[in-house]
Amino acid sequence: MQKRYLLAPGPTPVPPEVLLAMAQPIFHHRAPEFAELLGRVRDDLKWIFQTRGDVLILASTGTGGMEGAVSNFLNPGEKALVVNGGKFGERWMKLCNTFGAKVEEIKVEWGQSVDPQQVADALKRDPSIKAVYVQASETSTGVAHDCRALGEVVKARPDTLLVVDAITALGVFDLKTDDWGLDVVVTGSQKAFMLPPGLAFVSVSEKAWQKAASTKNTKFYFDFKKERESQLKNQTAYTAAVSLVVGLAEVLKIFKAEGLESLFARNHRLADATRAGMQAIGLSLFAKSSPSDALTAVEAPSGVDGQQIYKQLRVRYGITAAGGQDHLKGKVFRIAHMGYADTFDVVIAVAATEMVLKELGYAVQLGKGVGVAQARLMPAGK
Amino acid sequence: MQKRYLLAPGPTPVPPEVLLAMAQPIFHHRAPEFAELLGRVRDDLKWIFQTRGDVLILASTGTGGMEGAVSNFLNPGEKALVVNGGKFGERWMKLCNTFGAKVEEIKVEWGQSVDPQQVADALKRDPSIKAVYVQASETSTGVAHDCRALGEVVKARPDTLLVVDAITALGVFDLKTDDWGLDVVVTGSQKAFMLPPGLAFVSVSEKAWQKAASTKNTKFYFDFKKERESQLKNQTAYTAAVSLVVGLAEVLKIFKAEGLESLFARNHRLADATRAGMQAIGLSLFAKSSPSDALTAVEAPSGVDGQQIYKQLRVRYGITAAGGQDHLKGKVFRIAHMGYADTFDVVIAVAATEMVLKELGYAVQLGKGVGVAQARLMPAGK
Repeated sequence: MQKRYLLAPGPTPVPPEVLLAMAQPIFHHRAPEFAELLGRVRDDLKWIFQTRGDVLILASTGTGGMEGAVSNFLNPGEKALVVNGGKFGERWMKLCNTFGAKVEEIKVEWGQSVDPQQVADALKRDPSIKAVYVQASETSTGVAHDCRALGEVVKARPDTLLVVDAITALGVFDLKTDDWGLDVVVTGSQKAFMLPPGLAFVSVSEKAWQKAASTKNTKFYFDFKKERESQLKNQTAYTAAVSLVVGLAEVLKIFKAEGLESLFARNHRLADATRAGMQAIGLSLFAKSSPSDALTAVEAPSGVDGQQIYKQLRVRYGITAAGGQDHLKGKVFRIAHMGYADTFDVVIAVAATEMVLKELGYAVQLGKGVGVAQARLMPAGK
Repeated sequence: MQKRYLLAPGPTPVPPEVLLAMAQPIFHHRAPEFAELLGRVRDDLKWIFQTRGDVLILASTGTGGMEGAVSNFLNPGEKALVVNGGKFGERWMKLCNTFGAKVEEIKVEWGQSVDPQQVADALKRDPSIKAVYVQASETSTGVAHDCRALGEVVKARPDTLLVVDAITALGVFDLKTDDWGLDVVVTGSQKAFMLPPGLAFVSVSEKAWQKAASTKNTKFYFDFKKERESQLKNQTAYTAAVSLVVGLAEVLKIFKAEGLESLFARNHRLADATRAGMQAIGLSLFAKSSPSDALTAVEAPSGVDGQQIYKQLRVRYGITAAGGQDHLKGKVFRIAHMGYADTFDVVIAVAATEMVLKELGYAVQLGKGVGVAQARLMPAGK
């Protein structure tokens, strides 16, 4: 017998009350109770997105939302500036290319966050850039890009949109969609939203809707204008993923009970303790600046294969973490601490890492990293 | 948001596959599929009880099984010898008194296990003793009594039964019902059997059935002879707790997949690591001899209220452990590690204890106990 622990950066564990809600008998997506439900979750999504604008609910994973965030806001031949600092920056590149944009790339070394000045300079050099694509949290490297600063850079330009992949950011750390001028923000259900995969959420600013009115890219399922028309009537354009929306309502209840500030504080506490614990073991964080509070990418110590760490966590201890992607394969392993995560998930992650490293022949003092993490995890006060 | 952890000595957590099985639509207890199910679980119960005799399934908690283990095997006025070394030894006393037995008590200091020689001497002094009542694992103190040695003492006597409360023992550590001569063995669903409360299981030896044939105590619901007649036909005398029996079948599948030896080895590994971790924090075990592998009773350090440790584990860290009972209230807290328990439950228990003690002002080096526990928890080989 071995218990299983899901500490990967998505899908993340689903809370029991959400699983129970989703296990209820399904009802019809054109029934009045679904419209009532959709109205409620649409309101609550605005709250967590910190926007007064629309937040679309799509039956797709986050990548579907990203596709729509390209196809609805760029015409073929228009210029896009892509911040590419990892696997998901590359996904923006591929999507922009697929939909016929001219792409200018700001290549950011994996493990670094973009310097907002670089974006400002690129925009200044080329007034024809119609949209900037960036990750709020780059899941492949565990690095956050400074969306607040990027918002400052972009919002002064009436003809340029800022499009943010917040798939491992929204619900993890503060992201003020309206105040910071984030025109399009995309996230998915299976990260901080602690739902099964299958839903994407996309907020769209008025500025972005104005642009969408005139874009001509080929799209059908991810046609945001059509979807908006339906959702303003508390309907979905196509069949809604009913059970997931039922689960979403439960998740939003949990979020509201906790409150934004506590939610972000908890995620930060868990992230901070994970980073401190891993460093106390003698490991280096892969993020050289602005580590994301959603997940921690940890470098394998020299002489130890990162894939072995990832694999042994699973085989020996029932823990599903993540390995490195592409050229990071074998060099890093990644531990998530977003969504349905609490104090002892971090304790487990650090303890298991110590045990696996010891088994792999790395000199580690069992309990040392855990102790440092424990100290950071202890809630203040009372 | 706070995750909840159930580390109390019952009820214990129920594995997800068992919860799912029990969530299936209910079927009728007189339907053929229930008889088929009951036949299967009766066979598998014999395997885990290590007996060729009958194992009755009762819709009650363990105490109901204990009541039947008195009322079916003692006549009013007959003499019972009760080993009383804790709260559940006292329960044997109360039951024997309730059913009109003459009770001789071997009082064992709480925290100690009985010396089998004391039982042998008492039996030698008084040939009229018809049954010896004992706990295999005394849940209030975390102490195991040596049932193998007691079996040796009792089985030579044709007119004396050995009745064992194995509620926190069966499925935790080795208990050879037939080989050791344990005539009646009682357990419940909500401990090592990792089911919700509501079922008791009682094995009965041929020697005990012979005694039962002539006992005259008042009983109806817990009439084992009547129950046996039904269960030999794969029926229950009264309504069966259908969903719990469905869950039981899943649990027995898990037990069989793990195997008895591995099951006991895992429980021992978790118990050993808990004891070593708590001692490394500087705490003393309450069990002064033969600690039970089901749970660990830990003494609160001087100046710290044990009830505060128990309470703060829950309030601060979402962990339900147990406090001390009766005169141990405030003096000990108890952590279980039986049933659906694995490596990181122990890590969580020791880490949380460190953190709570530190918050309560006790000098503790965070991670020290955890490190010692980790070393004991690391599986050998491969």
